[in-house]
Amino acid sequence: MKRNYKKEDFPVWNVRRFLEPGPIVLVSSYWKGQRNIMTMGWHTILEFSPSLIGCMITSANYSYELIRKSRACVINLPTVDMIDQVVGIGNCSGADTDKFKKFGLTPVQASTVDVPLIKECYANFECRVVDDHLLPQYNFFILEVLKAQVAVYPKYPRTVHYRGDGVFMVSGKHISMPEKFMPQNL
Amino acid sequence: MKRNYKKEDFPVWNVRRFLEPGPIVLVSSYWKGQRNIMTMGWHTILEFSPSLIGCMITSANYSYELIRKSRACVINLPTVDMIDQVVGIGNCSGADTDKFKKFGLTPVQASTVDVPLIKECYANFECRVVDDHLLPQYNFFILEVLKAQVAVYPKYPRTVHYRGDGVFMVSGKHISMPEKFMPQNL
Repeated sequence: MKRNYKKEDFPVWNVRRFLEPGPIVLVSSYWKGQRNIMTMGWHTILEFSPSLIGCMITSANYSYELIRKSRACVINLPTVDMIDQVVGIGNCSGADTDKFKKFGLTPVQASTVDVPLIKECYANFECRVVDDHLLPQYNFFILEVLKAQVAVYPKYPRTVHYRGDGVFMVSGKHISMPEKFMPQNL
Repeated sequence: MKRNYKKEDFPVWNVRRFLEPGPIVLVSSYWKGQRNIMTMGWHTILEFSPSLIGCMITSANYSYELIRKSRACVINLPTVDMIDQVVGIGNCSGADTDKFKKFGLTPVQASTVDVPLIKECYANFECRVVDDHLLPQYNFFILEVLKAQVAVYPKYPRTVHYRGDGVFMVSGKHISMPEKFMPQNL
């Protein structure tokens, strides 16, 4: 059965809540009639506000030129129930495959960028490319999150985190200890 | 009881096995008699070989100048049994605290850089700064891992992953499905 998360707007400055733990994400893109989805594990938060994310996308990837030319993408957060789709998406090319069709995923037009987001994912972060000067040397995109939508429930998604060698770590239990933090460090 | 992992050299091109899942790490540094430890969650793998890591360290952090001036640091991987030390380290400043002493951690001289590594951690990745031109705009260091030492056992560490708001996710079970990958994607 397909997931059908009810989602709400979420403050873009706080997307670290979902990305800092390091999950594999699905990046969707679109340019002149071509759409694609790729898996991505090499990303980091760079700033709260503006909400900046840095990510490495190899230029061999079909998505690279779609993102570079459109200057936009959506970062979609899959949960462990989608692991077969995640692996499938990471092991075929958008050059000869419409991955939305092949993997039964529903494209929904994003609000702030001309890119389809993935309905079945737990969260969708709409991004524009704000700095591409590191592409020649590092294939490193700097993105700004323009809009975030996140599932209302559950509070914490069960995400998958890649270790290489075909092995994923699945997110486990949570430990909450805010009383041990200085307020400015929370 | 203090952890005393038996460690072995590990290929630097494959540190993604431990860092790509997105754990909180402890970064140790040293410059002219001053040593420090900081917590870091904003990091990403950038390349296999050379083994490159990108990380955001705010210039307000006491470690920033130690790393910038020495052009070196060690990325140490703590496990969940060290969570009180992790939180403590992230909530005091090296400007007035020797964090090795305060948190009962054992400094061991690294091999390739003049920085103390943290003996109690599961893994130690010795790094030099190879590119600092993104510091003015993004506080983003690009590091090369020169030497990696990793615990022989267990195969996968139980790491902590920060969500903000004083909440950590602890790494959970593993799913291995290499048969579903193309060999070049493993």
